[in-house]
Amino acid sequence: MDAAPRMRVNGVAAAAVGAADRGLAYGDGLFETVRFVGAGAPLWARHMERLARGCARLGLPPPDPALLLREARAVGEGLDAAVVRITLTRGEGPRGYAPPAAPSPTRIVAAFPPPPPRAQDYRDGVRVRTCGLRLAEQPRLAGLKHLNRLEQVLARAEWNDPAIAEGLLLDAAGRVVSATAANLFAVLDGELVTPALDRCGVAGVARAEIMAVRAVREAELKPDRLAAASELFLSSSVRGILPVRAWDARACAVGPVTRALQRHWRELGFPMEAG
Amino acid sequence: MDAAPRMRVNGVAAAAVGAADRGLAYGDGLFETVRFVGAGAPLWARHMERLARGCARLGLPPPDPALLLREARAVGEGLDAAVVRITLTRGEGPRGYAPPAAPSPTRIVAAFPPPPPRAQDYRDGVRVRTCGLRLAEQPRLAGLKHLNRLEQVLARAEWNDPAIAEGLLLDAAGRVVSATAANLFAVLDGELVTPALDRCGVAGVARAEIMAVRAVREAELKPDRLAAASELFLSSSVRGILPVRAWDARACAVGPVTRALQRHWRELGFPMEAG
Repeated sequence: MDAAPRMRVNGVAAAAVGAADRGLAYGDGLFETVRFVGAGAPLWARHMERLARGCARLGLPPPDPALLLREARAVGEGLDAAVVRITLTRGEGPRGYAPPAAPSPTRIVAAFPPPPPRAQDYRDGVRVRTCGLRLAEQPRLAGLKHLNRLEQVLARAEWNDPAIAEGLLLDAAGRVVSATAANLFAVLDGELVTPALDRCGVAGVARAEIMAVRAVREAELKPDRLAAASELFLSSSVRGILPVRAWDARACAVGPVTRALQRHWRELGFPMEAG
Repeated sequence: MDAAPRMRVNGVAAAAVGAADRGLAYGDGLFETVRFVGAGAPLWARHMERLARGCARLGLPPPDPALLLREARAVGEGLDAAVVRITLTRGEGPRGYAPPAAPSPTRIVAAFPPPPPRAQDYRDGVRVRTCGLRLAEQPRLAGLKHLNRLEQVLARAEWNDPAIAEGLLLDAAGRVVSATAANLFAVLDGELVTPALDRCGVAGVARAEIMAVRAVREAELKPDRLAAASELFLSSSVRGILPVRAWDARACAVGPVTRALQRHWRELGFPMEAG
């Protein structure tokens, strides 16, 4: 048994939530997955910014970031590294879609071990495939990390070959959007570009960090355009900067922009695997 | 306190589910809301058919309908009438979208009091509005009653005037799809029509019952076409057949097709309010 309880629900060590919670009933809520290194989370402020934006868009009272940080540190206590998932729902309420006028949100903070380090993935790159599922366009929810994730579940269920790290998702119009659990960047004619996320997709905090430190253009990217990229990489708050070495049958080179961002990730304090 | 526990989780009287349940984490599951009259549920078989279809499409092991019926009767014991919500999730699993190869689904069966009877709604009809939110088109999920319901929550949050019973939802192309928690039917040139649900929307069991007993054409319905309807009504497994007497600023008459289906609902065994 762990010494520290690894999950808190509304501040109390617990492993369960009310079965009438709207997070379960309707996916009515948001989440963040935060990579901790010891007691620190280099992208913490960006997670809190996205969570606040999501609360504003869903009409949820925003949580206190200082409280969340205390709880995240408590559930991760004693771990060298952890992924802390923060889930915020609209709480319990009467049956029916109508949100309660004065919701009492449910706050779940849970620590998990980080994915096993695979240094070769960061050095040589990973393989990705193109998913068959097409993301639906819903501007009202685009960019948010909300709890309605059946599209990602179905897309991720399309393959189980462990040699394939991720799946690229297109929208119904055939534009590349992201991977199932990471954002996508490409270097095209020397320019760093990433898909716009105003119709669908999750605007990752790692993506926001990259856009804060590099010139990045948001663009519509069809697969044939992406095929001309000199570099392709994935960004994720949990996994950092992952070069893509193969996309379907196409081989990709790992290039200098990817390496520079991996260095930036190490300078932020993220560990070894990121480079 | 009630004599009978009104909720069971995996067969055991309980009010909580594991906070790591994929139903909460990702909305990875399905639900049914079943109207019981005493120990009977006139549309039970249709609920079980839809649940089985949803399980097949999401790759969930289907539950045993006989077990669900026993549990539904147990949570509703002693109630003259109840709405029983059955929620089925992919259960707990490791963090990440990839569904476990051998999931242990979570089964939640809970009884609620039915909505208060409002005889005048069934006699005179209800008012509905047009929602601003547009439903996204996702053929992989269309028709299912899955747990990803943020669109319905946001649409239902658009009004709080209790005089308005429902909101009509359009898709991004401007086609009418349904109400937030009911299907929509119209009589057009003497023909009963309802929107096709192959792109978005929930294929209700009340809708299925109507289509089994009447000739119904599934059609693309734009608002200007709907405005020519001689009758408009909503169908819901919980609320039955609700005539629409006003849609935005437009008044609607309650007609013979609506009345015939209300009679059919009473013949099925549903109560008083349905006519």
